[in-house]
Amino acid sequence: MALSKKPVTGMRDILPEEMQIRDYVIGVIKDTYRRYGFASIETPCVENIANLTNKQGGDNEKLIFKILKRGEKLKIAEAATEEEVVDGGLRYDLTVPLVRYYSNNAAQLPSPFKALQIGNVWRADRPQRGRFRQFTQCDIDIFGEASNLAEIELILATTTTLGKLGFQGFEIRINDRQLLKAMAAGSGFTERDFDSVFITLDKMDKIGMDGVKAELLENGFAVGTVDKYLELYSGLEQAEDGLQYVAERLAEVQAQEDQGAAAVEGLREIIGSVEAAKTADFRMVFDPTLVRGMSYYTGPIFEIAIPGFGGSCGGGGRYDKMVGKFTGKDVPACGFSIGFERIVLLLTESGFRVPDAPKRTAYLVEKGVEGQAMADVIAKAQAAREAGEQVLVVRMNKNKKFQKEQLTAEGYEEFVEFYREALKN
Amino acid sequence: MALSKKPVTGMRDILPEEMQIRDYVIGVIKDTYRRYGFASIETPCVENIANLTNKQGGDNEKLIFKILKRGEKLKIAEAATEEEVVDGGLRYDLTVPLVRYYSNNAAQLPSPFKALQIGNVWRADRPQRGRFRQFTQCDIDIFGEASNLAEIELILATTTTLGKLGFQGFEIRINDRQLLKAMAAGSGFTERDFDSVFITLDKMDKIGMDGVKAELLENGFAVGTVDKYLELYSGLEQAEDGLQYVAERLAEVQAQEDQGAAAVEGLREIIGSVEAAKTADFRMVFDPTLVRGMSYYTGPIFEIAIPGFGGSCGGGGRYDKMVGKFTGKDVPACGFSIGFERIVLLLTESGFRVPDAPKRTAYLVEKGVEGQAMADVIAKAQAAREAGEQVLVVRMNKNKKFQKEQLTAEGYEEFVEFYREALKN
Repeated sequence: MALSKKPVTGMRDILPEEMQIRDYVIGVIKDTYRRYGFASIETPCVENIANLTNKQGGDNEKLIFKILKRGEKLKIAEAATEEEVVDGGLRYDLTVPLVRYYSNNAAQLPSPFKALQIGNVWRADRPQRGRFRQFTQCDIDIFGEASNLAEIELILATTTTLGKLGFQGFEIRINDRQLLKAMAAGSGFTERDFDSVFITLDKMDKIGMDGVKAELLENGFAVGTVDKYLELYSGLEQAEDGLQYVAERLAEVQAQEDQGAAAVEGLREIIGSVEAAKTADFRMVFDPTLVRGMSYYTGPIFEIAIPGFGGSCGGGGRYDKMVGKFTGKDVPACGFSIGFERIVLLLTESGFRVPDAPKRTAYLVEKGVEGQAMADVIAKAQAAREAGEQVLVVRMNKNKKFQKEQLTAEGYEEFVEFYREALKN
Repeated sequence: MALSKKPVTGMRDILPEEMQIRDYVIGVIKDTYRRYGFASIETPCVENIANLTNKQGGDNEKLIFKILKRGEKLKIAEAATEEEVVDGGLRYDLTVPLVRYYSNNAAQLPSPFKALQIGNVWRADRPQRGRFRQFTQCDIDIFGEASNLAEIELILATTTTLGKLGFQGFEIRINDRQLLKAMAAGSGFTERDFDSVFITLDKMDKIGMDGVKAELLENGFAVGTVDKYLELYSGLEQAEDGLQYVAERLAEVQAQEDQGAAAVEGLREIIGSVEAAKTADFRMVFDPTLVRGMSYYTGPIFEIAIPGFGGSCGGGGRYDKMVGKFTGKDVPACGFSIGFERIVLLLTESGFRVPDAPKRTAYLVEKGVEGQAMADVIAKAQAAREAGEQVLVVRMNKNKKFQKEQLTAEGYEEFVEFYREALKN
């Protein structure tokens, strides 16, 4: 039986043209993040299944590619459930493995520890255009830095990288989970309602103020609470200084004052420091409707918005409680994930060309050039390569014109032809 | 329950120090191979299980990490065998996925197609020191080049890369499957004995001529055949020009003359061209006992031997019959896999330092430096980073001396201290 030529469902082969852009983007990322003191690390693509199914990953936990036990441990015929036959799974993101890595190796790592991780992750999503079941993530994280120096450095490093890749006029939207909670609590929602309220609030940019109101009411929340909450948000829309407005309104609600005020102050510092030190062309924007899906965030949260591109191109935030789940002792942690696949897509669609590519020359060698004559041609190619050129040595086709057209399409600019007769001299 | 801090059995976390070397090696590999016209590609880590279990991978097929079916397709309780519950597996090498990739995308790829693939592979080997269940392979392959220009370019590109990484005085051992077969056939072995004979021959460097003889006899081969075969090999050991010797001896055996003579001529050309054009410090060596495990090889085979390091540091060969298994039509193919993990290990053990690392400066910022003062420190760091420096901004610890020692160990050479009082001015 012939073997299957197609990749597995939902995954894809990456062609040379796109790989050039991917390699270039990875190069810029590694070079830029290194200047901020981030160190590359790598974790296995496979994790223990218990670590992947422990409610850190939200819906992603439903999408895990699971790995079968091997040898004597596997008893298929006797098994009644999945749990009995699997022991590992492919990671669905880089955060859970990174936190495990930090917990496992903290004694050998510097403090603060600044990590850069670029790697594939897998999710068995329903296959759809533009979304694949294997894709690359690119995360930077800082462990052991409790102050907002962590947020400032993460945002500066990421925006500088985006700037070097040619992105301009984008926004970093920022909010704080503590502020979100203070605003909800101040309006009368109780703690156990927060997750549900935030899921609705997150849709503000899609369904608008009226849509949010309708959905909150539909979910059974009291009219008075909902009105008070949305009044806050419509006030925010009008306010010139959103953070100032929030601070004043929260001050009216005695119980939420401290929590909210600290968050407001923190956001103001982050925004101020980033604006003062930024090198790329972007704006910091306080976005009180920014929620970020994962429930593990504990402080500031942020997201990249690129004009003309729906959805975010990356995001992150503070998650001070996750290391404790592995070690029993919390460690401050904050991360920023750059939307690698989206950035590659945007560059590809904009006709991006990798800069500073070396000169490409193709040597066309006539059939019959063999032995010493061929060795001479190759020695010439070697010398040009040593000098930094890209040299392709190929046999000359019968249809030389067509061959040159093909090579031109591949980026070869210059052609040198070698003939049997000429080389005999 | 606390989560598990350890990586899954047999896999490992890679610490920053080793990652610096890995990143550097990958950079040199990509830069050098690109000059030879090799284009980066990527295939999914998961392949259809049928492709992975079709006798291309030898013993590796027993070591596959298999992936469970999902959703309705999975019927654990009814299943009696593995086959019923899995649909994919993690690749055990890069060759099978590459050939599938070429078969799938040939219409969009240049001809000849020169591919560079760097990626992880997985094998559920018994865990042992220095061998891991996830490791990185690095392969270059050429499709569509029938002449030995392919072998010459593969060997030159790989040896140039090794030279740039600082390796000297190594050997490329070369042989040809056709020559192996001609020598076996000329001695009286029949085609169906070849695999068994070659497995024994492969042990020559470990068990010596007497050991090979004993094992062949033990396996039931006729004394006359075995003696004739080993006489050839002992003659080879004495011969000044091994290829000349083989050619002459094969000429005595009418039936094997053509096949053997072509192989001898091909090896002579490859060795000659490589020696004439090489830029690294190494020797080409005809090794008549070189076998290479995989049975898919059809022509020249080669291996890297680095002095003082037992075992090979990479190898490859021609496999002209594998594309046909996917498409029904054979395409000439030849590849060289560099032993990435071994090279990293050798560099690490030799105390290798990544060259041209940027200057590293650490800013130690006293507690209490906040707001505008902190923004000023960060702006200063930004300027140094723009200039290419690596700058770490950290809070000053109480034990500043210890902190500096730690940072020195991480490679920071210069320290700048920022105090609350000084910044007020």
